[in-house]
Amino acid sequence: MTQAACAKKTDILIEGATIISPSSSGADERITVVDKGTIAIDGGKIVYAGRSPAPPEFHNALKRIDASGLIALPGFVNAHTHAAMTLLRGYADDMVLMEWLQEKIWPIEAHLDSEDVYYGAMLACIEMIRAGVTTFADQYFFMDDTARAVRDTGIRASLSRGLIATSPNSSRALRENIELCEAWDGEASGRITTMFGPHAPYTCPVDFLEKVMEAAEEHGVGMHIHLSETRGEVEESRARHGGMSPIELMDSIGLFEFRILAAHCVHVSPKDIEILSAKGVGVAHNPGSNMKIASGIAPVPAMLKAGVRVGLGTDGASSNNNLDLLEEARLAAFLHKLANDDPTVIPAGQALAMATLGGAKAMGMDFEIGSLEPGKKADIILLDMNKPHMYPKHDLTSHIIYSARASDVTTVIINGESVMEDGVLTGIDEQEVLRKAEEKAKALVAKA
Amino acid sequence: MTQAACAKKTDILIEGATIISPSSSGADERITVVDKGTIAIDGGKIVYAGRSPAPPEFHNALKRIDASGLIALPGFVNAHTHAAMTLLRGYADDMVLMEWLQEKIWPIEAHLDSEDVYYGAMLACIEMIRAGVTTFADQYFFMDDTARAVRDTGIRASLSRGLIATSPNSSRALRENIELCEAWDGEASGRITTMFGPHAPYTCPVDFLEKVMEAAEEHGVGMHIHLSETRGEVEESRARHGGMSPIELMDSIGLFEFRILAAHCVHVSPKDIEILSAKGVGVAHNPGSNMKIASGIAPVPAMLKAGVRVGLGTDGASSNNNLDLLEEARLAAFLHKLANDDPTVIPAGQALAMATLGGAKAMGMDFEIGSLEPGKKADIILLDMNKPHMYPKHDLTSHIIYSARASDVTTVIINGESVMEDGVLTGIDEQEVLRKAEEKAKALVAKA
Repeated sequence: MTQAACAKKTDILIEGATIISPSSSGADERITVVDKGTIAIDGGKIVYAGRSPAPPEFHNALKRIDASGLIALPGFVNAHTHAAMTLLRGYADDMVLMEWLQEKIWPIEAHLDSEDVYYGAMLACIEMIRAGVTTFADQYFFMDDTARAVRDTGIRASLSRGLIATSPNSSRALRENIELCEAWDGEASGRITTMFGPHAPYTCPVDFLEKVMEAAEEHGVGMHIHLSETRGEVEESRARHGGMSPIELMDSIGLFEFRILAAHCVHVSPKDIEILSAKGVGVAHNPGSNMKIASGIAPVPAMLKAGVRVGLGTDGASSNNNLDLLEEARLAAFLHKLANDDPTVIPAGQALAMATLGGAKAMGMDFEIGSLEPGKKADIILLDMNKPHMYPKHDLTSHIIYSARASDVTTVIINGESVMEDGVLTGIDEQEVLRKAEEKAKALVAKA
Repeated sequence: MTQAACAKKTDILIEGATIISPSSSGADERITVVDKGTIAIDGGKIVYAGRSPAPPEFHNALKRIDASGLIALPGFVNAHTHAAMTLLRGYADDMVLMEWLQEKIWPIEAHLDSEDVYYGAMLACIEMIRAGVTTFADQYFFMDDTARAVRDTGIRASLSRGLIATSPNSSRALRENIELCEAWDGEASGRITTMFGPHAPYTCPVDFLEKVMEAAEEHGVGMHIHLSETRGEVEESRARHGGMSPIELMDSIGLFEFRILAAHCVHVSPKDIEILSAKGVGVAHNPGSNMKIASGIAPVPAMLKAGVRVGLGTDGASSNNNLDLLEEARLAAFLHKLANDDPTVIPAGQALAMATLGGAKAMGMDFEIGSLEPGKKADIILLDMNKPHMYPKHDLTSHIIYSARASDVTTVIINGESVMEDGVLTGIDEQEVLRKAEEKAKALVAKA
């Protein structure tokens, strides 16, 4: 027995880190800090996370990472994005929504092809890994290509094909979403999962949503949808659907009997919040996008108080314009303090929990990611504390939310595999991706 | 003549950069972009900034910087901070203002000594240089020590001694401010200038302000003051001073006949804005601090429209909690789009202008800093574009404001001297400063 224990080697041992993590069992804002801790990884999972030294059975490791002077966090969860839209970053800004869509975004999107989406998604995955994002939820098209990028970069994602019933190719799109589920769900060592992607209630009438629900039921997956992002769509819903908000309407047709990830939820009523809470709907709050596009302020403190599963998202890089989830966590803390005229709202710990475990909960993945606890997948990031803006070390949780930068992330482990070490991406030719993304974007602009 | 021209060498030649700068003569939001440009520096000043190649007389240089793939910007101007408060970063967050001040900040500040302020200011200067801030406006105490840190780090600053009439040592403080002006104005090769620092109308009654104005007149310097940061102080002013807002009150006593840098200006009326514009008062807008402390939303678009000189500030690191001016520029663009329900408000170019030339104007220094134009001081920063979040290159001004990070700054030149090269601070023992700041902060906490 003793011999066997000694002979067994874990895959990775991270030693000397300050481990900061929410806890799956505790309240959202309860953060545990372990100074000079150890994390042991085996078979893609965390097998120990806590004080040093770890129990003897974890002492032998194939690989050891000296993390002294580093903070270990669960990887950030970007609960709403459109990865390939990185290709349109900076293509059009500072415009009103409908002009922006009709004059700039839709015309250029009409020219996107499979390779564009692959390189756009590769660029997004690289950017996210560098910023400590280990999981993202995506909705776009040519999703096979986004899946290839997820596979090739080592990141984790839940992918959905955006479905717009009013578009002429809506049947083909639904078929593509079915094929996405069949081809990719559980692939890349389980890093890829899938959802259906009905875009929004105002683009997907009830009869279409019923088809989507049928397909989701058949494939046993959830759905990723935009809900109540703008005031206009809520007003339209109430006018068209007997006074029902989009959330009431979705509830009435049974959508919330499925696992639902709802992006935005900006213009929601107390009744909407009750429904979101009662039905366990996940909400992806996107403060940067909501501010930049002037959509409004989601009542996040009220949602959290009601027990809604709230995570954070960057939205696509054509509207925000980066995929920096740490920035979203800071914005969430700042925005809701201001909106509620109360600096105690969304304290640092709660913002950090939303950026990690909250996103996992919103995606229905908190059983396997979102915190540094034995049994969870080993999605771990290390941040360098040896930067002027991280001194002095009065409160590291505060520093992460209120002072750190995405660039402080030095090492990223996803599914137990090291995808970035000391700032260097392992196994990806980053310069080639940057070159190709630039080339694809230039060609797109020439066509538009 | 030709020989003389050839023999003459400029100090530094920056070649191949994409030069992005506002123009002193144009509207605030007019940004000039020169692809593959050259900047020549001589005697601490910019002598050429424009297309490559530069005219022949600038071809010989003592030092050449290959800036291909880099963006050259005027250094950021942090128009309001309390540098040494970095020592209290993360010491107390997520609290209501008066509890935070009375229970946490004031008690610990009572223990600050000269060496604490020196190392706090050193930490701040290092953090700012790394973030591309080349000039800051400060108000605090033990200002000799902040001046020493400015001298030792190579940054540019305008320093004022915070004056609170209601404090028992107000006369000594005013004397210290006078001594600061006499000892330091124009020192460190002109990098240090001084102001008087009457804290705010609610802490400095009119009779005290008259003494400060007298001293300012005698020393020929301006003043740095907090104005209308909270709703409460405006209400109190109107109640106590015959209905006058703090800004009306200051105007009535002649304060605005001086060069004034006014921090915050959150709760201002249309009449206040008229006064600020008519009197050329500089405003330091602090969106991060105003959000985190829930002070409110300054009507910045209205101020800009009225021609007020608006720059940006981080405020002190105990309230914000970093000194990242680029983050403030993004927050300003985001916040005012949201507040005005209009995504066209504060476009990227205007945000960049506020972060540079706007701050210089607010500090009354636009004749010498804030843009990359011949005749101005050589305060220049280089940003690395070769990062995933800076691709593809549809619009670099948009990328700077909406996607870049302070960590993209690689090289910083201030007053013609290179203070950071490729991420390495020249002439500062950074690790020693971090170590001392940590030691001083720990000792302070033990005393508090």
